Amino acid sequence: MIDFILSENVFNKDNIPWNGNRFLIGNGYFGIRGTLEEYTKENMCAVNMAGIYDRAGDAWRETVNAPNPLYTYVKVNGKKYALPENEPVSHEQTLDFENGLHSRKTVWQTENGKITVKCERFASMSRRHLIAMRYTFSSDFECDAEIITGIDGDVWDINGPHFVKLNSGSDYAVNYITGITGEKNISVTARDSVKLNFDAECSVDIGEKTVCRHIVFKAEPQKEYSIEKIAEITTSEDDFEPKGDITEITYQELKAEHIAEWARIWDISKITIDGDDEAMYALNYSIYHLNCIAPREMKSKSIAARGLSGQVYKGAVFWDTEMFMIDYYIHTEPEIAKTLLQYRIDTLNGARKKAKEYGLKGAYYAWESQEGGYEGCSDYNVTDVFTKRPMRTHFRDKQYHVSAAIVYGLMKYINATGDYDILNEGAIEMVIECSEFYRSLLIKKADKPYYEIHDVVGPDEYHERVNNNAYTNRMAKFVFDTALELIEKYPSDQYDGLKTMLKDSSENIFIRKPNDSGIIEQFDGYFKLEDVSVDEVRSRLIDPKEYWGGAYGVAADTQVIKQADVVAMLSMFKDDYTSEIMAKNLEYYEPRTEHGSSLSACMYSLLSCYTKNTEIAYPMFMKSAKADLVKGGKEWAGLVYIGGTHPAAAGGAWIVAAKGFAGITEDDGKLICKPNLPEKWNGMNFKIMCQNKLYAVQIIGGNASVTEL
Amino acid sequence: MIDFILSENVFNKDNIPWNGNRFLIGNGYFGIRGTLEEYTKENMCAVNMAGIYDRAGDAWRETVNAPNPLYTYVKVNGKKYALPENEPVSHEQTLDFENGLHSRKTVWQTENGKITVKCERFASMSRRHLIAMRYTFSSDFECDAEIITGIDGDVWDINGPHFVKLNSGSDYAVNYITGITGEKNISVTARDSVKLNFDAECSVDIGEKTVCRHIVFKAEPQKEYSIEKIAEITTSEDDFEPKGDITEITYQELKAEHIAEWARIWDISKITIDGDDEAMYALNYSIYHLNCIAPREMKSKSIAARGLSGQVYKGAVFWDTEMFMIDYYIHTEPEIAKTLLQYRIDTLNGARKKAKEYGLKGAYYAWESQEGGYEGCSDYNVTDVFTKRPMRTHFRDKQYHVSAAIVYGLMKYINATGDYDILNEGAIEMVIECSEFYRSLLIKKADKPYYEIHDVVGPDEYHERVNNNAYTNRMAKFVFDTALELIEKYPSDQYDGLKTMLKDSSENIFIRKPNDSGIIEQFDGYFKLEDVSVDEVRSRLIDPKEYWGGAYGVAADTQVIKQADVVAMLSMFKDDYTSEIMAKNLEYYEPRTEHGSSLSACMYSLLSCYTKNTEIAYPMFMKSAKADLVKGGKEWAGLVYIGGTHPAAAGGAWIVAAKGFAGITEDDGKLICKPNLPEKWNGMNFKIMCQNKLYAVQIIGGNASVTEL
Repeated sequence: MIDFILSENVFNKDNIPWNGNRFLIGNGYFGIRGTLEEYTKENMCAVNMAGIYDRAGDAWRETVNAPNPLYTYVKVNGKKYALPENEPVSHEQTLDFENGLHSRKTVWQTENGKITVKCERFASMSRRHLIAMRYTFSSDFECDAEIITGIDGDVWDINGPHFVKLNSGSDYAVNYITGITGEKNISVTARDSVKLNFDAECSVDIGEKTVCRHIVFKAEPQKEYSIEKIAEITTSEDDFEPKGDITEITYQELKAEHIAEWARIWDISKITIDGDDEAMYALNYSIYHLNCIAPREMKSKSIAARGLSGQVYKGAVFWDTEMFMIDYYIHTEPEIAKTLLQYRIDTLNGARKKAKEYGLKGAYYAWESQEGGYEGCSDYNVTDVFTKRPMRTHFRDKQYHVSAAIVYGLMKYINATGDYDILNEGAIEMVIECSEFYRSLLIKKADKPYYEIHDVVGPDEYHERVNNNAYTNRMAKFVFDTALELIEKYPSDQYDGLKTMLKDSSENIFIRKPNDSGIIEQFDGYFKLEDVSVDEVRSRLIDPKEYWGGAYGVAADTQVIKQADVVAMLSMFKDDYTSEIMAKNLEYYEPRTEHGSSLSACMYSLLSCYTKNTEIAYPMFMKSAKADLVKGGKEWAGLVYIGGTHPAAAGGAWIVAAKGFAGITEDDGKLICKPNLPEKWNGMNFKIMCQNKLYAVQIIGGNASVTEL
Repeated sequence: MIDFILSENVFNKDNIPWNGNRFLIGNGYFGIRGTLEEYTKENMCAVNMAGIYDRAGDAWRETVNAPNPLYTYVKVNGKKYALPENEPVSHEQTLDFENGLHSRKTVWQTENGKITVKCERFASMSRRHLIAMRYTFSSDFECDAEIITGIDGDVWDINGPHFVKLNSGSDYAVNYITGITGEKNISVTARDSVKLNFDAECSVDIGEKTVCRHIVFKAEPQKEYSIEKIAEITTSEDDFEPKGDITEITYQELKAEHIAEWARIWDISKITIDGDDEAMYALNYSIYHLNCIAPREMKSKSIAARGLSGQVYKGAVFWDTEMFMIDYYIHTEPEIAKTLLQYRIDTLNGARKKAKEYGLKGAYYAWESQEGGYEGCSDYNVTDVFTKRPMRTHFRDKQYHVSAAIVYGLMKYINATGDYDILNEGAIEMVIECSEFYRSLLIKKADKPYYEIHDVVGPDEYHERVNNNAYTNRMAKFVFDTALELIEKYPSDQYDGLKTMLKDSSENIFIRKPNDSGIIEQFDGYFKLEDVSVDEVRSRLIDPKEYWGGAYGVAADTQVIKQADVVAMLSMFKDDYTSEIMAKNLEYYEPRTEHGSSLSACMYSLLSCYTKNTEIAYPMFMKSAKADLVKGGKEWAGLVYIGGTHPAAAGGAWIVAAKGFAGITEDDGKLICKPNLPEKWNGMNFKIMCQNKLYAVQIIGGNASVTEL
């Protein structure tokens, strides 16, 4: 039995930011941070909208948080009781992630006795615009009670304020606040409707930034007074309509629909593990997050690096999606994977524009992609802790591997689904333009016969501006080869001229070979850098928030790397290398890796599976699966807050479970399962989609069965 | 009449470091800082040895300071009187730079009356190993006086200590201290011999680090008691012998010889200016310094960037020599110029080794060249003021233009002297190897037809790692063209194969053309940088010592540059450009130049002369000529002390005077003078060597006459 409950039974103020992430609920259209109902922006409250962006002044563009329709607190005998101000007698926060339900129960001691507040809420998975909440008050003494509930338009912003105007109003049945963004005049509206199960005096207070109902009543001891709220979020950018009228739907109806939809999702996505409840819990919790943020019902939308947990990383889409998340969707709900890819196809123009900006050809996708492929990444993406000055970083201009990751994601999708139609829907053009982009990066030294790529940032961002990053060169070759393969499969006059160029590029690009010890050097000169332990490098920090990379960071001149780089390449192109080479590189690079990115551990784990090295595979899998369950993840890059959920780690955990441990591969359309389970795992059970067919995979010990359903 | 006297008539403790530089005496074999006789290492006392290097521990390699044989102070009635501890009644320090004589006179008030110390000293120009000093004591009351004079082996070091062992001794006539360096076991010996003009009790005290004579006598009022010291410095690296026995030569004899030699030098090198005594003074003072540091009598030696004023910049030879200093020597004592070039020819192996280290071909000369062409430049050449950490700089690895500067210097020498023999003495090989070096830097983009040079640091060091620096690319072309020209002039089977390569390189290297406004962009993307004033950039400094360049310096992302870069190129290749283009670039770049290098002003001045823009030419000339006369030059780069004399600025001033203002050029072996004097200059008179002939140049107003002597 899978345990689907995450709960915390004490109140700890310091956990507010972290709880906001791990207790998150969402439905792909928005994410609601796991904050409490009485919280405001000071406590990082947010209803984070997928794909709605705004720039305030000169600050970074980022996603917009909607006016918060969950805002609710209680007064007893005229005195407000709320966290974190009033210390509770007891407090419980729970996420039932089987059913996507967030709840809390808090007891305070008042002068006259105890009061209890309970609340359950969910982000409707069946009607994506809706949020529902049942808020219950009780006391063990008679008192004058007041529930204040409404919409809070004074939202939390990292680089705001984004709403230059707030329109609010009420027709009593429905209250609303519409925020209007400054840059593009986008409107984001929150409406709420409330039903009571008791008699009360009700009034509406339309304030400057809030619209609140005041529900005043005489509370009898031990009696529960519940209000049920149905709220709706809409924006002027919506491409699908809300379903139903919020004054008509009941909480129970909506909850039943919601749970049914979650059941449908879990039916295909849950994974049971026999013999390791901890791993099973963490893995399914990861899957929960992937389900919360999937752009269902949408045509062309992707997923931000921090999912829907807030504005961190500007709410932008990174390579994370195609590298670490898309596999899960390909193999559970492939239409979601297609939506993710459609976003890239539809933002090709943005990528063309970026390439042109740097004097390059083809499609250079944004490092931090926002709507339309707009590059949200700044040239100054980190703040120096010593001078407080913005630091010139090279994420935006030199992290060339991003375009290849998209092609790689596309090919994973096509190979696993057989959906070649996507090629005619824009994908082939995208691949061609990516190949032209990499062509324009190739240089040849006057005295050398091969092509090189200089001045790049590879996945290991701690070493900027390096030459011939093994990963980047290999990915460029992959793009050339893919383009060539597609042109040959789908001949077209317009691409005829490209063949020679693609062949020349693929054949002559410099692909670094393992050295005499079997190690592939990460980039030109990497082996000459100081060879020193991660701990030694960490001990050189003067300030714990200081950035490890950049020109002068503590890691920059050492062999200590941020995350999988050569190891990522090996795990992606495992058929090119012997198991011995993979094992040697794993052994070399792992102790030199800080794992400063949540994208790192799963790559090491996966390669470990391929080399049967369970010593690394299991802990790295757990690190990935528990990324949002364990406190103390990296929350700062220089002075920039980078906390939030880690969907790439979640997706990475799924990849390791399915492709690493269960050993799922495909051969000519046939699903193959060659398990390589961690020692304490007795078996696994899960479903998986392949070539439009659903399979049940059952592993017991070393034996596996695959049944088409 | 030229005023050859520099003097300071008050004692100001704060001026000690600066006076050490501006009152310098030297003879090319060593430099003696303008410190006072009683000073020790605390006050930056140094007898700095040309071309003798050592490394102490892991610190930077640098030149060695000899044991100081001038160390002398006085005691009266048992009490020591010395600067800076004892405030004087009056104090005078003087440099007679016509005769290379340093003198001081200091009066102290004692409990019983006044005492006076006078001292005159010189670094023998006729016998290069010798130093002479006459030290005189007098009082206006009777007293017990003691003169302590000896050799101080406890020398000032920036990155020392260099002497791991000191051997000292005395045979009474001659005392000595020999220091033995740690890295290469080099011995540096100072010996002294003293004569008195009075009777005294003399004893010798052989201490751990000093060997001193104690000369005790009863002093009568108003009587002068003089000691005359002849000291000798020798090293185990000497390639020429000391002349004469220091116990036999008298101070007067040596002084007469010394002055005669200075007279010979001045006869050919002095420049008179009619109408501007200030400029005449500064220019001849600059020439004095060039004469103090010239490696006369030596076969293969060059000049450090800070001359012989100490260990700053590691006592290493920079491009300064071939770019800014060599012109003066070419046109006054060309055999010195040849010695400088011989040093480069003889250190070709060091340059080959450096090229190989970076995977390049041919000869990549050291940015900071020490003996044998050893690269003294560290990868970490600046200390961060905020973190106190060494900063990774790219002076060493990316300042590719250094090899071209040497070829440029060679061609200036050959063209002005007609000494083609030097080509057969190794110079042609040097040029060829430099051309092979530049060839190995060329890259071609897969989609572009021309060669580029990427990832360089140009003369403007504030912008590191740029592509297609206009100066660097043009200099590379110059080297290709020169090599081709020499091969064609001196055909040899071994170079036949190079012609195609050289032609291809020269014809296809990207040379940036002026844009629509006539401006040549300094490097790819320079025009996109923030266009902001030097003052604005300066105002952004948090710490006044902070480094402007590097990845995050205040200038790095702006158009503010350290020094002449495009302007240097234009002044060096003036025949390639119209006067209008030169003027426009001067006008564009000058306000954007911080002149943070003493190499900068003269280049602007020279180009101004070529474009007849006297508004800039004169003040920039004066800035260059007065580099060592004006207090407040840049003394810090990050936390690294960079004070000292500025021979490149001195050489630059000479270039502007001769080639800019006097308008000296040469056409087919004939000296041409087309003067372009600053407004207040009525005329100029000087001598100049050309094609082995000496000419007298006389300019009166706009008219010039050139007479072969």
